[in-house]
Amino acid sequence: METVVSGIRPTGNLHLGNYFGAVKSFLQMQNEYNCYFFIADWHSLTTHPKPNDIVQSARTILAEYLACGIDPEKATIYVQSDVKEVLELYLYLNMNAYLGELERTTSFKEKARKQPDNVNAGLLTYPTLMAADILIHKAIKVPVGKDQEQNMEMARKFARRFNTIYGTDLFPEPASFSLAEKAIKVPGLDGSGKMGKSEGNCIYLMDDAKTISKKVMKAVTDAGPTVPNSEKPEVIQNLFTFLDIVSTKDTYDYFNEKYNDCSIRYGDLKKQLAADIVAYTEPIREKIVEYSANTEYLAKVAKQGAERAQESAAKTLKEVREIIGFREI
Amino acid sequence: METVVSGIRPTGNLHLGNYFGAVKSFLQMQNEYNCYFFIADWHSLTTHPKPNDIVQSARTILAEYLACGIDPEKATIYVQSDVKEVLELYLYLNMNAYLGELERTTSFKEKARKQPDNVNAGLLTYPTLMAADILIHKAIKVPVGKDQEQNMEMARKFARRFNTIYGTDLFPEPASFSLAEKAIKVPGLDGSGKMGKSEGNCIYLMDDAKTISKKVMKAVTDAGPTVPNSEKPEVIQNLFTFLDIVSTKDTYDYFNEKYNDCSIRYGDLKKQLAADIVAYTEPIREKIVEYSANTEYLAKVAKQGAERAQESAAKTLKEVREIIGFREI
Repeated sequence: METVVSGIRPTGNLHLGNYFGAVKSFLQMQNEYNCYFFIADWHSLTTHPKPNDIVQSARTILAEYLACGIDPEKATIYVQSDVKEVLELYLYLNMNAYLGELERTTSFKEKARKQPDNVNAGLLTYPTLMAADILIHKAIKVPVGKDQEQNMEMARKFARRFNTIYGTDLFPEPASFSLAEKAIKVPGLDGSGKMGKSEGNCIYLMDDAKTISKKVMKAVTDAGPTVPNSEKPEVIQNLFTFLDIVSTKDTYDYFNEKYNDCSIRYGDLKKQLAADIVAYTEPIREKIVEYSANTEYLAKVAKQGAERAQESAAKTLKEVREIIGFREI
Repeated sequence: METVVSGIRPTGNLHLGNYFGAVKSFLQMQNEYNCYFFIADWHSLTTHPKPNDIVQSARTILAEYLACGIDPEKATIYVQSDVKEVLELYLYLNMNAYLGELERTTSFKEKARKQPDNVNAGLLTYPTLMAADILIHKAIKVPVGKDQEQNMEMARKFARRFNTIYGTDLFPEPASFSLAEKAIKVPGLDGSGKMGKSEGNCIYLMDDAKTISKKVMKAVTDAGPTVPNSEKPEVIQNLFTFLDIVSTKDTYDYFNEKYNDCSIRYGDLKKQLAADIVAYTEPIREKIVEYSANTEYLAKVAKQGAERAQESAAKTLKEVREIIGFREI
């Protein structure tokens, strides 16, 4: 069974963009691959050196993953900082990661631009830590969005370089498992392209009906079509994309016709969309509440995940150490 | 008892520069401080990514330390890569180490100049790994040569910064324990200022009488003084400095007089110097041979050192994790 690794930074609740963009694919993957889904608490320190409550944040993601249907018996779910082995591989990869290539990565340049007062070595070596997370399990496939494609290219480069320097074929080159092909890109409702934490336009799985309704009703629209069968401007297309994701085909067709004959009332569309989102998320939300309250179970899942991940990581690290030349003195 | 930490890169045998410049001071320190002397095998990867035999190199230093008189019952001698805790602190320090300050360190710039094809992230973060080595034991004093003074300044800066960011006083600022004040600077015999591995002008503790004699006889000299009581040129002063270190006062005075009345024969001086070096190093060399052969004992010392160092490191790391906010999920 091929190994898949995917991490998520615990910097907030899961939103619909995460759900349809990634988590839903994970539900399928856990049946077909040897999956490691980890909560990247160390990574989050690169931009949040002083986390508010790092443990609560990890617990939140864990509860939400479980609520979405990730099954700890099928997939290994673990907290990154529970698997120390990754740090030793991180160090070894740093020894063969060139400053120039690290500084040239887009994600580094963007983050450095956003936090010019804190351009730190953790930020620079983000790709080596990410590569270590992947290579420590010898993952073959990594589901990533387009923004991580360059970091994946780095991970492949570091794998190849390690193999070349030490004359080994230890690390397979992890392929990007493009989520864009399978997954659905959830639009923002504020006129911007994509739903994202940093965009501040998210509908969270944990949002209650009232909050969801309020967010949807505030969605940007226009004055409405005046010519039948007009092309939809982006903000309107976003609403229809959303309908396509959460509503029935009938609902979609109904509003599409209304749009095409210029009789659409956006208020009605939004009301329906909000109701359909709530219908989709409400059962998940209930489970999140349930899991979040069961901290004992969460601790058990985290512990079991850590043990399994450590076992896999320790196995790889042992090989790495032998290849570099470390043995018992 | 105050804590002292000092590391040595296992990239060769100990030479007289190491011995008189550092190890001899350690013999005194181990009686007065809580000493951690570690063999920096991870650090050596920054410039030697593909070590020849990393374990044998560590073993060599260990045997030589013991032969010089470092006592594993008084000081904790350990191999850096045996204490994984340091890697987690390394990561945390990286998160608050700025690229600019790391790139500006002289040792980085020098090494980057020497290996332009391998300016790697390990080289850049050398000061954070060094700081982690020191801070993990909350060392108060670190014996360093002048070339490490800037890295010590970085270690202090990282300690202060951690304390400030997380509102704690966890880390004391490690003071530099200037070896230059107490220790003796051993000159090179090739006309260059200092004995050093990278200068290729070393007399090793492990050198036998014949090798030592050969090296000393090849020492650079000049045509000899023609005016009584002349000032000694550097290459001649180096020979006298050496006499001052290993020979008796009578020997020194004898050749000094000869120099001052212009009757000196450098060949005689060199012969005497070689004999005196051999007399000094021979007992150490015998012990090195003895310890090197006793791999079982070396393994025992390394294991005991690792355990003690791990205990100290784990204690600090626990505090660090709590301060940042990591707890069991």
